[in-house]
Amino acid sequence: MIIVLKPLSNQSTIDRLTRRLEELGMKPHVIVGVERTVIAATGKEQEGTQAELEGDTDVEKVLPILAPYKIASRETRKEPTVVQTGSLTIGGGTIGVIAGPCSVEGEAEILEIARLVKAAGATALRGGAFKPRTSPYAFQGMKERGLELLAAAREATGLAVVTEVMTPHHVELVARYADVLQIGARNMQNYHLLQAVGEQRKPVLLKRGPSATIEEFLLAAEYILDQGNLQVILCERGIRTFETHTRFTLPLATVPYLREKTHLPIVVDPSHGTGIASLVPSMSAASVACGADGLIIEVHQNPAKAVSDAAQTLNPAQFEATLATCRKVATALGKSM
Amino acid sequence: MIIVLKPLSNQSTIDRLTRRLEELGMKPHVIVGVERTVIAATGKEQEGTQAELEGDTDVEKVLPILAPYKIASRETRKEPTVVQTGSLTIGGGTIGVIAGPCSVEGEAEILEIARLVKAAGATALRGGAFKPRTSPYAFQGMKERGLELLAAAREATGLAVVTEVMTPHHVELVARYADVLQIGARNMQNYHLLQAVGEQRKPVLLKRGPSATIEEFLLAAEYILDQGNLQVILCERGIRTFETHTRFTLPLATVPYLREKTHLPIVVDPSHGTGIASLVPSMSAASVACGADGLIIEVHQNPAKAVSDAAQTLNPAQFEATLATCRKVATALGKSM
Amino acid sequence: MIIVLKPLSNQSTIDRLTRRLEELGMKPHVIVGVERTVIAATGKEQEGTQAELEGDTDVEKVLPILAPYKIASRETRKEPTVVQTGSLTIGGGTIGVIAGPCSVEGEAEILEIARLVKAAGATALRGGAFKPRTSPYAFQGMKERGLELLAAAREATGLAVVTEVMTPHHVELVARYADVLQIGARNMQNYHLLQAVGEQRKPVLLKRGPSATIEEFLLAAEYILDQGNLQVILCERGIRTFETHTRFTLPLATVPYLREKTHLPIVVDPSHGTGIASLVPSMSAASVACGADGLIIEVHQNPAKAVSDAAQTLNPAQFEATLATCRKVATALGKSM
Amino acid sequence: MIIVLKPLSNQSTIDRLTRRLEELGMKPHVIVGVERTVIAATGKEQEGTQAELEGDTDVEKVLPILAPYKIASRETRKEPTVVQTGSLTIGGGTIGVIAGPCSVEGEAEILEIARLVKAAGATALRGGAFKPRTSPYAFQGMKERGLELLAAAREATGLAVVTEVMTPHHVELVARYADVLQIGARNMQNYHLLQAVGEQRKPVLLKRGPSATIEEFLLAAEYILDQGNLQVILCERGIRTFETHTRFTLPLATVPYLREKTHLPIVVDPSHGTGIASLVPSMSAASVACGADGLIIEVHQNPAKAVSDAAQTLNPAQFEATLATCRKVATALGKSM
Repeated sequence: MIIVLKPLSNQSTIDRLTRRLEELGMKPHVIVGVERTVIAATGKEQEGTQAELEGDTDVEKVLPILAPYKIASRETRKEPTVVQTGSLTIGGGTIGVIAGPCSVEGEAEILEIARLVKAAGATALRGGAFKPRTSPYAFQGMKERGLELLAAAREATGLAVVTEVMTPHHVELVARYADVLQIGARNMQNYHLLQAVGEQRKPVLLKRGPSATIEEFLLAAEYILDQGNLQVILCERGIRTFETHTRFTLPLATVPYLREKTHLPIVVDPSHGTGIASLVPSMSAASVACGADGLIIEVHQNPAKAVSDAAQTLNPAQFEATLATCRKVATALGKSM
Repeated sequence: MIIVLKPLSNQSTIDRLTRRLEELGMKPHVIVGVERTVIAATGKEQEGTQAELEGDTDVEKVLPILAPYKIASRETRKEPTVVQTGSLTIGGGTIGVIAGPCSVEGEAEILEIARLVKAAGATALRGGAFKPRTSPYAFQGMKERGLELLAAAREATGLAVVTEVMTPHHVELVARYADVLQIGARNMQNYHLLQAVGEQRKPVLLKRGPSATIEEFLLAAEYILDQGNLQVILCERGIRTFETHTRFTLPLATVPYLREKTHLPIVVDPSHGTGIASLVPSMSAASVACGADGLIIEVHQNPAKAVSDAAQTLNPAQFEATLATCRKVATALGKSM
Repeated sequence: MIIVLKPLSNQSTIDRLTRRLEELGMKPHVIVGVERTVIAATGKEQEGTQAELEGDTDVEKVLPILAPYKIASRETRKEPTVVQTGSLTIGGGTIGVIAGPCSVEGEAEILEIARLVKAAGATALRGGAFKPRTSPYAFQGMKERGLELLAAAREATGLAVVTEVMTPHHVELVARYADVLQIGARNMQNYHLLQAVGEQRKPVLLKRGPSATIEEFLLAAEYILDQGNLQVILCERGIRTFETHTRFTLPLATVPYLREKTHLPIVVDPSHGTGIASLVPSMSAASVACGADGLIIEVHQNPAKAVSDAAQTLNPAQFEATLATCRKVATALGKSM
Repeated sequence: MIIVLKPLSNQSTIDRLTRRLEELGMKPHVIVGVERTVIAATGKEQEGTQAELEGDTDVEKVLPILAPYKIASRETRKEPTVVQTGSLTIGGGTIGVIAGPCSVEGEAEILEIARLVKAAGATALRGGAFKPRTSPYAFQGMKERGLELLAAAREATGLAVVTEVMTPHHVELVARYADVLQIGARNMQNYHLLQAVGEQRKPVLLKRGPSATIEEFLLAAEYILDQGNLQVILCERGIRTFETHTRFTLPLATVPYLREKTHLPIVVDPSHGTGIASLVPSMSAASVACGADGLIIEVHQNPAKAVSDAAQTLNPAQFEATLATCRKVATALGKSM
C-alpha cells in the first residue's frame, strides 16, 4: 500500500504514521520526494487499514497495490477453469452456446424452441422461470411450473438447463431442476444470494452488473468461490453508459482483460448487450473473435410474440445463421464450437 | 403509444398493424407523413404490447407516452407524502436528519455517537448491522447484536433508528428493531426484498441504485407501494459516471425532478454521494437549497478509526457545523429543520 | 414530430397548438387518448420548431421522428461509400489497415516503422505531426517537419499517409502532405475545422468524440459532407464510461449499428479504444468479425521508447501477429484484407 | 512516481529499471513486498517517463503522485483569483450573475433582455453571436452583427458582455467587442483556441467538456494560463452520463472539489446542466449553497420563441424569482450577491 502524504508534512506526522503502520503489523518505507513524502507499506494488510489511512487528515491519498480478489485470480491458479455439466462445456478452447427464450411461456413452446436451438447448434437451453422485471406490473414468470417445463425440455432434448434464481430461499428449488444457476445482473451484488449459490454445488453463471467495475465483478465471483463452489462462469452482458442507441453498451474488451486476470470462463450475452436483434449476429461473431468461451443468446419461435425482450430476440433461422458465422470464426482461430 | 414505421412501408403493412392493435384492444390512428407513417394507438395497453411491436420487422421504433409507475406518481396523489415515525419527520416542509456511523461497532460506541448526533441536531440514528460489502473478506457487520445495540441507543436517546435489511428472510427480524428499513443501493432491484418490505408496515428508505434511471427508481418504489406499504422515502446517493475524483457523482437535479413526478419524500446522502468528508458540508447545504426533505450523513466519533467508510465520515464537530449551515439555508428558504 | 400534451389539457390549448403548427407550415393530427392528448405533426419541419414546442408550458414532451442527418443517411444513398486514395482502400468489402506510431519522432524512425508496418500488411501509414495533448507541458509534435517526414515515408514505401489536423488554418498545410486528414476525437465538434476539411477534397477520417452520441457523430460527418466532401471515414475509438480498467470503453456494436444508418465506411481504433497493448490483438479481430471496414493501430519499433501512447502501442512482431489473426477472420467471413 | 512491478520479477529486472530511472534523472527507492516489488522514484520527472514505464513488459502499473497542472493549482497560489471586468466581479466572496439569451436574435431583442436581466439583478450579459450547433442545418448565430448588438447592449445598460469564441482566427474580433471570452464545452480541448485566448488579455470563461475529468479541465485552463492570461473562470455545465431525464447531469460536488485544488473562480451553468427550465431555480440555489462564485443562466423575453435552447430558458419573471431565492441563500451564508 502506498500512502501519499499532503504537501509539506512534517517529521512528527511521518513518525506518527510509521508507528501506526507498525502497530497494524506492516513495514513502512519512507520516501522523501521534492514535493511530497510517500510511505510504502509492505506486509499483510488488515481489513480497514486502507480506510483508516484515507480518513487521516495528513494523508492525501492511498494507492492499493494488490487486487482484492484471490481465489478468482490467475495468480492463484494458472490453468483455465472448465465448467462441464451435461451437454454444456465452457472453457478450455470449447465454446458453449446457451440459447432459448427470455421467459418460459408454456409446455409446447419450450419443447419446440429447445428442439430448434439444439438443431441449430446450441449446447444448453436458457429460459426464465423466475423473472426479475423492472415494473411490478410486468409478467413475473411461470415460477416453479416453468422449472418443471425446463426439466421436461432437458429430458426431451438432452440440453443442459440454465435458469435464473432471484432470492436465497429459491436456491434449493431452482437447483433441483437446473444444471446451471444464473445470477442476473441486478443481483450481482446480492450477497446473500451469492453465498447461497456458493453453498450448493451446481455451476453458477454470474452476470456482470450494468455499472459494476471489473474488480467488483470478480469480488462478486469471490463470494461464490469463497463458499467452496469453484464452478463460476462470468458473463459480460453490457454496461450502462450514455449511449442510448443500444439498450446497453457491450464492452468486449472485458473478455481479453478478464482472461489476463482470472482463470474463470467468460461468456458474452449479445442479446442484452445490445437490445437489438439485428446487432446480435455481428456481436456474437465479435465475441468469439476476441476469445469468449461461450455465448448466451435469446431465441424464440416468433420473437414478436415473445412475452418479454422481443426486440432483442432472434428467430431460429437467424440464430442458425449466427452460429454458422461464429463457427467459421472459431474454426479460423483454432477453437471448437 | 406511438408506432413509427420504417420508411416506404406499404398499405398492407399499415393494415396488418392496425388490425393487430385492434386485436390488442387499442384504437389505432394512422398518420401518413411525407417520409414516414406513424400509428398512434390509444386505449389501455396490455403487458407485452410494446415489446411485440418493437420486434416487428416493419416497425422502426415505438415511443411510449405514459410513465409506467402509478401509485408513486404525482398524478395519482397531489399532496406530498409525509413519513413520520418516532423522532423522525420527513416531508411536508420538515427536513429530517439521519446521522450515525456506517457500521454499528459496539455498545459504548453506538450510544456515544447517538448522543453526539442528537446533540448536534440529528432527528434519527443510522447505523449498519447487516453490511453489504464489495469483498467477502471485509467486515460484514455485527448482525442481530447490532440491531439490539441500535434499539438500546433509541431507548437512551429517543432517536428513531434507520438500518439496512439485505435479504427477505431478515425483514421480520430487522423490522422488530428498526423504525425505518433501509434498502441499499445494490439491492434497489432485488424485487423479492422490495416485496418483503412492502408487506410489512414500517417506513422504507429506498436508495437509488448507482446506475438506475429515474423510471427504474420509481418502479422499484412501486414494488413496495404495490404491496400496500405507502411510506417510502426515496434517497439519492450518487450515480456511477466516468468521474473518479469523487466516489460517485451526486446528481442533485434528481431532487427537484422527482418532486415534479412523485409525492414521495426525497432525501440525499452526501456521504456516499461524494465519498469525501470535506465535500459533505457543502453538498448538504446544496441538498437543502434544492429542496431535499432530508439528509442521511455518516458521522463517527473518530472517523479514522471507523471500520468502514472512513474517508467520507464526518466527526461530530464537522457534523454540527454542517447542520448549522444547513439550518441557515433552510430558514432562508422558509423550511423548518 | 409527436407533441405529447400535459395531462388534462383542455380544448383551447389543443386549438392554440394546432393553429401554431399550421402557422409553421405543418399539418397537425390530434389524437385524444384516455390519459393524454397527443398531436402528430407532419410536413416539413422548420428550424427551431421542436425547441419552441418543448418550451411551451402545455407540452410535456416532443418526440422527433426523423433522423436529423441527411447526406450521411443510408436512406439517401444505399450503396456503401468506398474511400480510395493511393495504397488505401476502405469500404465495399476491402479492409484497410492504417498503422504507425502515435507521433512522428524523426526521419530514420518514421522510415523504419513505415517499412515495418508495410511488410506486416498495413495499407496506410499513420503518424502525428501536430499532436493534441491533454497537458500544455507534453510533447506537441514535430509540426511541419513531421509532415515532411511522413511524405518522405510515403515516397519510400508507397503507403498513403493519414495524419491529424487540429485547427482550420493548418488544413491547407496538412492537405499538402497528407492523403487522409484525420479529425481527432477532441475536435469532433470543432465545427470550423469540420467545415474547413469539408471545403478541401482529400478524404477525412473523423474520430468519434468520447462522449458523442451516434446522432452527434453523424451530424459532425454531415458538417463535412455538407461542404461537398463526400469522402468521410468514420472511426470508433472508444467512449468514456465508468470503466477504468481500460483507457476508454470500446463499444463495437457501433459498427453494425452505423452500418444500418449510414453508407460511410467505418474503421475501429483498438489502440485508443483500450489503451492497453495486450488487448489490441483480440479487439482487432473482434472489429473485423463485426464488420469494420478498417483498423487504425499504433505500432512503434520499441513501444517503451515511444514519446507518447507507449502503453497501447504494439511492436512490429505483435502487429504482424495481429494482422495474421485478423486476416483469418476476414477470410472466414469472405472479406479481403 | 510509483512503479509497481509484475509478480515474481527478478533482481535483473529491478536492476534494469533502477538504472533506467537514474538515467532519466530520478532517484529510485526499491521496496520489496511479499507479493510485489515496487519502486518509488523521486526527483523531477521528464516528459514521457510515465508512458515509457507503463509500456515496459515487467511493469504492472505506474501510479503518478503529483497533479500535472501547476499554475492553476492551489499549491502555487493560496489566495483566490478574483476576475473583475466592468460590471462583473466573480470570486472572493462576490457572486456574479451572467444572464441573457442563448443566441443574440436582433437589436430590439437583445436591448430589451439586457434591460430586463439587469433589472432582475444580473451583473453581466450573455448571448451567443457565433453558435456551435450539433447540426449544420441549425441556426449558426448572427456572427459579427451579433457582437455589435452585444456591445450596443453594454453601452445601453452598463452590463459586461460574455460571449463565445469558436475558432482561433475569431479571437481578435470577439475580443474587440466582448468583456469575457467564453470557450464552449465542445471546445474545451481545442488547444489552438485555448492558446489563442491565452495570448490576449481579456478574461476567459472556460466551460468543462461534458466528458472531461477534473484533471483534463484544469489542464485545459493551464493551456490558457501558460500563455500568461491568468484571468480564467471555470464553468461547470454538466457532464454526460447515463441519465436521460435531464439533458446533462449537473455534478455540483465539482464546486467544492475544485475549490480545494485551484484558486480560480468557479461558476455554474444550471441551464445547460439540466436542460429543463423548471429545474433551473433550485439548481441555482444549490450552486450558491455549495459555494459557486457565479451563475450563468439563459433568460429570454419569451422562451417559447427563442431560436435555440427554448426548453431550458427562463422568462424574466422566473429569473427574478430565482435570483431572489439565491440571494437569500447567499446572505444566509455570508456572501454578497
